Amino acid sequence: MKKVTLVLLRNLSEEDKNYIREKIGKYTEIYFLDDIEPDHPKIRDAEIAIVSMARGEKTRKILSNAKNLRYIQTLVAGVDNLPFTELPRNVVIASNAGANAEEVAEFAVALTLTAAKKIVLFDKEMRRGIWRSDTPHLIRDSVIMILGYGKIGREVAKRLRPFKPKKIIGVNRRGFKDDYIDEVIKPNMLDKVIGEVDILISALPLTKDTRGFINKNLLDKMKKDAILVNVGRGPVIDEEALYKHLRENPEFTAALDVWWRYPSRRGEETFQNYPFHELENIVMTPHMAGAWKGFRRKLLSHALENVLRYLRGEEIENKVRIEDYI
Amino acid sequence: MKKVTLVLLRNLSEEDKNYIREKIGKYTEIYFLDDIEPDHPKIRDAEIAIVSMARGEKTRKILSNAKNLRYIQTLVAGVDNLPFTELPRNVVIASNAGANAEEVAEFAVALTLTAAKKIVLFDKEMRRGIWRSDTPHLIRDSVIMILGYGKIGREVAKRLRPFKPKKIIGVNRRGFKDDYIDEVIKPNMLDKVIGEVDILISALPLTKDTRGFINKNLLDKMKKDAILVNVGRGPVIDEEALYKHLRENPEFTAALDVWWRYPSRRGEETFQNYPFHELENIVMTPHMAGAWKGFRRKLLSHALENVLRYLRGEEIENKVRIEDYI
Repeated sequence: MKKVTLVLLRNLSEEDKNYIREKIGKYTEIYFLDDIEPDHPKIRDAEIAIVSMARGEKTRKILSNAKNLRYIQTLVAGVDNLPFTELPRNVVIASNAGANAEEVAEFAVALTLTAAKKIVLFDKEMRRGIWRSDTPHLIRDSVIMILGYGKIGREVAKRLRPFKPKKIIGVNRRGFKDDYIDEVIKPNMLDKVIGEVDILISALPLTKDTRGFINKNLLDKMKKDAILVNVGRGPVIDEEALYKHLRENPEFTAALDVWWRYPSRRGEETFQNYPFHELENIVMTPHMAGAWKGFRRKLLSHALENVLRYLRGEEIENKVRIEDYI
Repeated sequence: MKKVTLVLLRNLSEEDKNYIREKIGKYTEIYFLDDIEPDHPKIRDAEIAIVSMARGEKTRKILSNAKNLRYIQTLVAGVDNLPFTELPRNVVIASNAGANAEEVAEFAVALTLTAAKKIVLFDKEMRRGIWRSDTPHLIRDSVIMILGYGKIGREVAKRLRPFKPKKIIGVNRRGFKDDYIDEVIKPNMLDKVIGEVDILISALPLTKDTRGFINKNLLDKMKKDAILVNVGRGPVIDEEALYKHLRENPEFTAALDVWWRYPSRRGEETFQNYPFHELENIVMTPHMAGAWKGFRRKLLSHALENVLRYLRGEEIENKVRIEDYI
C-alpha cells in the first residue's frame, strides 16, 4: 500500500499539482488542500504533510485530525507558526531552510544599503524639491554582525565582503564558522562585542530562546548611529524597546522586513503595536525578502527533494528541534 | 623662485590649510581662495590651480586672470563644469578620478538594490499601513551593463559579482576589460545588446560625446522592466526622453543621483524641468554618491598626490582630453 501525503498548500495551479505528482506520485498517494475536507477518512492514514506556514484555518483542522502523521515538511524556512503542541508526538518536522537563502540575502543587503545611504529619506525630500544635506554611511571599514549565522547569513556575508568591511562577525550557538566571516561568537558573548558593531543583521528564527533577544539591554549597548536589519522574524526584537530606542536615538536606523503584526491578507491596512510608520529612521518592507518571480516553484522543488529523501528512506535535511519551540 | 599655486577651494578649515601646506608647501608658494582677490598680482604668476568643480563666481574670475596657468587639478572626478574655453591654451587639466571610486560604487550598488527591491515603494505603502503586493527583482541571473566602465565601474562590478548575475558587460571607448566583467563593448555596439540588459548603470562623464547619449532610441530598445541607475552626470540622459519613458512604462525604474538642474545651495527648493518627483518608478537622491564622513580630506589627499607628481616633474595621472569638452 502506498503512503499518503497531504499537500496543504493554497492556490496551487494545475501546473503546480502536476509538478508535485510527477515528483513524488510514484511513491505516494497525494491529496491536495482544495480536494479534501477536514473529516476526509484518508486524513487519518496520512503519514506525510507538506505545508507552507500552516497558518490557515483549514490546514490547522486537517493537521489536528491527522493523528498518524510521521513527517511534516514546510515550504518556508521559519517554522514558528506550526501548531507544535497539537501535533502527534514523535512527528519529524523539516523546514525548507536554504531554499531561498540567496534571495533573502539579496534583500537583506538591499535593506542594509538603503538604510546606510539614507535613500528613503533623500527620496522623500527630493520629491518636495529639497536637496537634503546629510551624510550617508560607508560600508567600507564598518563592523558587520550577522545574528543567526547560517545559510542566509553566509550569502549575506559573501555579498558584503567586496565592500571591504573592517570585519564580519557571525553569531550562532553551534560556533559554526566559514571563510566568509572573520570570526564567530556564541550568543552569550554578544554583550562583549555589540558595542563595536556598525551594522547588525538578524536572520534568527523565532524560537523560545530568540524571542525578544534583541532587547533594551542590547540596543542600549549599541553605537548611537548603528543600523539594525531584520529579515528573520519580527518578535526576535522586543517591539517596545526598539520603538523607544528609535525615537530616542534619531541617528540609529532600523530596516525591517519582518514584523510583530501581519494583515490577514495583502492589501489590508495593518499597523504595528507602536507607530513605527511615523518615524524617519526606519525603512519598512512587507515581508518581501523571500518573494521573487517564480519563487514558489523553487521553494516547492527544494521541499520535494526532502520529501523524496524521506520516501526513499534516506536522511532528511533541516530537521527542526521541537524543543526549541515548546 | 618657488612656483605659485592657487588653492581655490571654499570652506577650508585651518586644519585643511595646514595639511595642504605640509604636503606641497616645500615646493610651492600657496594662496588660498579666502586670502586672495581676483586682482591680486600673484594670480598672474600662478602656474598651478587646485579647484573643486570651479563653479563659484570668485573662482572663475581668478581663473580668467591666471593667464600663465600650466596645470589645473580638480578635486572632483567630473570636470565638465570647468570654463574650458576661457582657460589658457595648452594648460594641462587633471581630474581626481578614482579618488572616491569605491564610495561612489557603494552608492551605485545601493541605488541598484533599492530600485530592484522596490524598497521606496514598499516603505511608502507600509507607512499607510498597506502591505503592498508586488514582486521584487532578483539581481541573480540578471544582465548588468556598466556604461563608462572605468574605476567606478570596476568597483561596482566587484560588488555585484557575488550576486551571481548572468553577466556583467562593460562599455567604454577604449575597449578596456578586466576580470570583473564578462565582456566589454564599444559604445557604437550598444544598440545590438541593449535589448538584453536588465540593469544599466551609468558612470559616464559629461562630454561632447556623452551628452544625451541615453536617448529615446536607446530607452525604447530596453526591456520594459529594466532598471537605469545614474551616478555619473545628469545630462548624459536626455531628460525629456527619460521622463516620457518612465511615464509610459510603469515597470521601468530609474534611480538617479545626478540631475539636470541643481540648487545653488543645499536646502533650496529645486525641481527638474520635468516633474520626475510625481512618478512612482523613480528613486531620487541629491548627488550624494561621493559624500561620506571625512570624504573631503580623502579627495584632497588624492589630488595633492597628483600635484606632487607635477611638482617633482613626474607624469601626472588622470589627464583630461580637452577635445572631449570643446
